[in-house]
Amino acid sequence: MLESEIYKLLTNNGFKLPKYIRCEVTDVPYIDFFPVALKVESSKIIHKSDFGAVKVNISNKKKFIKAKQEIIKSISQKDIFLDEDDYFLVTQMVEGFELFVGVVDDDIFGKVIIFGKGGVFLEMYKDICYIDLYAKNDEIIKSIKSLKISKLFKGFRNYKFDIAEIVQFIQKVQEFVINNPMIKEMDFNPVMLNEDGLTIVDSRIKFSKNQKTKLVRTKRPDFFKNQKVVVVGASANPNKVGYAIIQNSLKSSCELFFVNSKGGELLGKKVYSSISKIKGDIDTAVLTIPAKFVFGIIKELIEKKLKNLIIISAGFKEVGDLNSENNLKLLAHKHNFNIIGPNCLGYYNSTTNLNLTFGTSNIYQGDIAFISQSGAVLSALMDKASKFKIGFSHIISAGNMVDINFAELINMLNNEESCKYICIYAEGISDGKRFLEALRNTKKPTYVFKTGKSSLSKKVAFSHTGNLSGNYKMFKGLIKSVGSKIEDNIEALLFNPIIDCDNILIITNAGGPASILSDYIIDRGKKIYQLTSEDIAEFDKVLPFNWPKANPIDIIGDSQSDRYENSLKIANNLPEVELIYLIVTPQFMTDSLNIAKLLTKKWDKKIIPIFLGGELFGKSMKYLEKNKIIYFDSLQDATSFL
Amino acid sequence: MLESEIYKLLTNNGFKLPKYIRCEVTDVPYIDFFPVALKVESSKIIHKSDFGAVKVNISNKKKFIKAKQEIIKSISQKDIFLDEDDYFLVTQMVEGFELFVGVVDDDIFGKVIIFGKGGVFLEMYKDICYIDLYAKNDEIIKSIKSLKISKLFKGFRNYKFDIAEIVQFIQKVQEFVINNPMIKEMDFNPVMLNEDGLTIVDSRIKFSKNQKTKLVRTKRPDFFKNQKVVVVGASANPNKVGYAIIQNSLKSSCELFFVNSKGGELLGKKVYSSISKIKGDIDTAVLTIPAKFVFGIIKELIEKKLKNLIIISAGFKEVGDLNSENNLKLLAHKHNFNIIGPNCLGYYNSTTNLNLTFGTSNIYQGDIAFISQSGAVLSALMDKASKFKIGFSHIISAGNMVDINFAELINMLNNEESCKYICIYAEGISDGKRFLEALRNTKKPTYVFKTGKSSLSKKVAFSHTGNLSGNYKMFKGLIKSVGSKIEDNIEALLFNPIIDCDNILIITNAGGPASILSDYIIDRGKKIYQLTSEDIAEFDKVLPFNWPKANPIDIIGDSQSDRYENSLKIANNLPEVELIYLIVTPQFMTDSLNIAKLLTKKWDKKIIPIFLGGELFGKSMKYLEKNKIIYFDSLQDATSFL
Repeated sequence: MLESEIYKLLTNNGFKLPKYIRCEVTDVPYIDFFPVALKVESSKIIHKSDFGAVKVNISNKKKFIKAKQEIIKSISQKDIFLDEDDYFLVTQMVEGFELFVGVVDDDIFGKVIIFGKGGVFLEMYKDICYIDLYAKNDEIIKSIKSLKISKLFKGFRNYKFDIAEIVQFIQKVQEFVINNPMIKEMDFNPVMLNEDGLTIVDSRIKFSKNQKTKLVRTKRPDFFKNQKVVVVGASANPNKVGYAIIQNSLKSSCELFFVNSKGGELLGKKVYSSISKIKGDIDTAVLTIPAKFVFGIIKELIEKKLKNLIIISAGFKEVGDLNSENNLKLLAHKHNFNIIGPNCLGYYNSTTNLNLTFGTSNIYQGDIAFISQSGAVLSALMDKASKFKIGFSHIISAGNMVDINFAELINMLNNEESCKYICIYAEGISDGKRFLEALRNTKKPTYVFKTGKSSLSKKVAFSHTGNLSGNYKMFKGLIKSVGSKIEDNIEALLFNPIIDCDNILIITNAGGPASILSDYIIDRGKKIYQLTSEDIAEFDKVLPFNWPKANPIDIIGDSQSDRYENSLKIANNLPEVELIYLIVTPQFMTDSLNIAKLLTKKWDKKIIPIFLGGELFGKSMKYLEKNKIIYFDSLQDATSFL
Repeated sequence: MLESEIYKLLTNNGFKLPKYIRCEVTDVPYIDFFPVALKVESSKIIHKSDFGAVKVNISNKKKFIKAKQEIIKSISQKDIFLDEDDYFLVTQMVEGFELFVGVVDDDIFGKVIIFGKGGVFLEMYKDICYIDLYAKNDEIIKSIKSLKISKLFKGFRNYKFDIAEIVQFIQKVQEFVINNPMIKEMDFNPVMLNEDGLTIVDSRIKFSKNQKTKLVRTKRPDFFKNQKVVVVGASANPNKVGYAIIQNSLKSSCELFFVNSKGGELLGKKVYSSISKIKGDIDTAVLTIPAKFVFGIIKELIEKKLKNLIIISAGFKEVGDLNSENNLKLLAHKHNFNIIGPNCLGYYNSTTNLNLTFGTSNIYQGDIAFISQSGAVLSALMDKASKFKIGFSHIISAGNMVDINFAELINMLNNEESCKYICIYAEGISDGKRFLEALRNTKKPTYVFKTGKSSLSKKVAFSHTGNLSGNYKMFKGLIKSVGSKIEDNIEALLFNPIIDCDNILIITNAGGPASILSDYIIDRGKKIYQLTSEDIAEFDKVLPFNWPKANPIDIIGDSQSDRYENSLKIANNLPEVELIYLIVTPQFMTDSLNIAKLLTKKWDKKIIPIFLGGELFGKSMKYLEKNKIIYFDSLQDATSFL
């Protein structure tokens, strides 16, 4: 598309552009809006600057004529000669603060707007944010405020602009792109911000030939409704997954059926030699059989009006068999059942105490729903959770994710009363648009960890926008803009939901570590509680005269458990404090075991003990582990989930 | 200082400035260098822009006359009227890329140069670096390369400049400031970079009235030479520090003397009732007595030609007694002995196996010298070190640091053969210039952790420079520029020296965690080893067909210890690999204890096992701890020291 055509298109869609004139190569037009820029408009030249085909800051007619001659000379040296198909474009120079607005059609998130500092600094500082094409007002504002240039909207030097004007512009871009679905990539750079508003000075638009269409199911059964459950591949061999699953499943209140062609009995239950022998319908099935038998079994399950299928069996995409995965998908569509997996660790639901995983059998009931794309990460975190008695409402090992996706799972979890928090470990996301939509709409707090931060996409880009998309920053920006928390370590997916606190108090027997801890807390954007004079008076009653009268509360190196206890009692009564860190360092004669024992008492506040040491604290740590009390032995770990 | 005077001063010192004319208020000078800027030079006006006393981009004489009239009008509206003491300054407009160069006299580091992006973006992006006034060529380059604008020197858009030109300019600034020691603060903003080099367009200089002088001792005894050691305050009470110290000291090959006014015998050794009763001189003394007795004892020790004094006793600065600390300092100066402390954990030297700390008695001999300003952090890390058999050559608990400082300790450690690495935990640093100098000159790798990141200094600033100094970024920038490593967690001070590796290989039984680990490794600027086709052929011999033929080496979920062992054997022989991470996740039937046992075998490479789990790995972790093998149970921790 030629620049003058883009000018028309944008003007027709309500955007403001500089005054311009399009003239023939030999023409010297009358210009009443000096100073101007002059550029060639020709299909022969793509990168105008590289060919010397642009001149700026032309202040009068004489200089205009000279500039034109210079351009013609410059491009002729590159063997390009203009003819009647070519034009010159004369545009008014616009002063102001240079912004950048782009649109990209991302493989994962679809159309996304990129906004930030424009001009020459765009690439240098990458001060940009990502805004979903369907982002609402508050999301747009949140994204803009994440920029360094957002200082402009608070008043910065001689600049002070209304953020609402930017938001309106972004909304106009949203509308424009939604109404013109063939737009594939778009660059406005710069958009000039000045007292007259926003003017698009330079623009490029790329259109696509055809639109993607996607197979989307509107209605599907609720995956979390499980009553009659069959385990296909039940095994008597304790070294097999099929044994682990049936053993883990036994505690459930669901009606359970074990299937193995050998028949017989397992763990006191009848084993059916085939699915057809089970009376009535089945809603949920889990398969641990080799991949080659999967399709045969599914056929039998369809006869039983299957609703939910968990395929633990490996041997699909991960060994290169994409075709089978596609067939699974088509089957699920045709017969309207859900698939979890293949190549996964299984499924757990606390409501019926249904553990269909081959992870630890020691799952505590709780309020965290955990969705994981990696079985290994999941099994590690399930094991860590059981160490500290962190409970789950649901566990879904998504595996190769052939059918049901993150968005659908989140939507289904919205109706599950047992679930208070949704934690997601993601490796790759296919339909980012629906994922964003689901996160945007859920009322439950969501926590997301994503791998592959450093694997930037390295496509050859048409525009700046192309270069700036498809990276972890974009993922992070979009996910945060819809209100989710992005975690930077996997353990935080367990700890953050249960310790989502602010206004923190620190009790410590040493100043140094407390000062480091405060740094970490502030780095994470959380507040250190400010003691009132009444609080100080309370602590004065139980602490030595030389305590520093401030939070962190340094109860001094010679503290024994009684002083920790007295301080905890006061802290426990401070209404505004949400979380208490208890730092214990191995000072001479610190009775760490007695301090550890304090933590098994009943406290109203959340208390996180940090035992900073190694061998000398061995017994105390063992005591805490035995009592399943969450503790840390490093200051960084203890704050990594804030 | 008036602007025209600064112009002269700078020009005389070899800096390039724009052409300028200074003219009287009523004067219309002949100008041959349009376009120009026009500003008032008057002691009545400090912030010219705020008073409308600056006009830029004046292109001819007519506009010049108009601009002058406008300025006079504008300032008269603020009730300022120019007279014969006032002037106008006409300067040539200079185009180019705006840089910033400042100098600050920092409380800690003395004179420091700040360099970066200038103009309006200085405050917005804070793309600046810190350069010591005495920084050498390579330090300057290192600092400049940490900037985003350093792209300019690699070729960026239409810009491409020689970094050497910037370095020369910085060196000119160094020379200028060294030769003019009364300069207290200086702002060049902007300095214009273009084909003609660097031109200082705007400048402010603040001079100080008087120079600081400091008491510096040039020659002092070597703290690490200890032969005859006395413990004053030796105690029979196991609850006292004076008992812990004598017990810890017993293993030493030094000649030991215990002193307590009660006399008698302790742990099989004679106790002297006073220092005077000890025959001959004493080189090292450690005091655990109450603060009020310290000065009396020091008098007696001076008689014995004391060289090194370790004051463990608390009750000085930390309870508000600054006067006593000053007296300690003066005594040390007068009688030329060193003081460590007061209020510290003590001192350890592996050469004579001398443990004069009241930390763990279980110190392993090794090659890390550890200097800590916090006794509590030190005792925690000593305890953690003993858990993993990490050894020390020296431990110095600096305490209130009344006398001997970081720089002197580093310089002394340079001559200690037993010390290979120097680790420093710092809370506050007083003489930053000498600290930098010591770090710059030592040939031993140095690792620094510093608290107080978030406590920015909040002084009212004369200049940009003032606003940009005194923060953690400045500390970090300067320390890094002299070649030290800055740690972001305290444990890294132990792990980093012994695992200072690159070219990393990962062996794992799951893809997900390995992908996260790779992210962390790359984030930390380290390389993932690239497998050659020969390497792949080797691994093919021992791994299942579907391993991904790349590093991370996913040996597949069903791996048992034999497959780990076979893979380790191959990895151990790859010449370029420096470090191997071994990830173990609790997959079904993972024989984790046998995998743990592999690690007690002899391997040439450094191997860091990561056991990602909780309860299921209990036994394996206990086994590793018993065998003092460094392991981690979190991916983030396992890389936090890289």
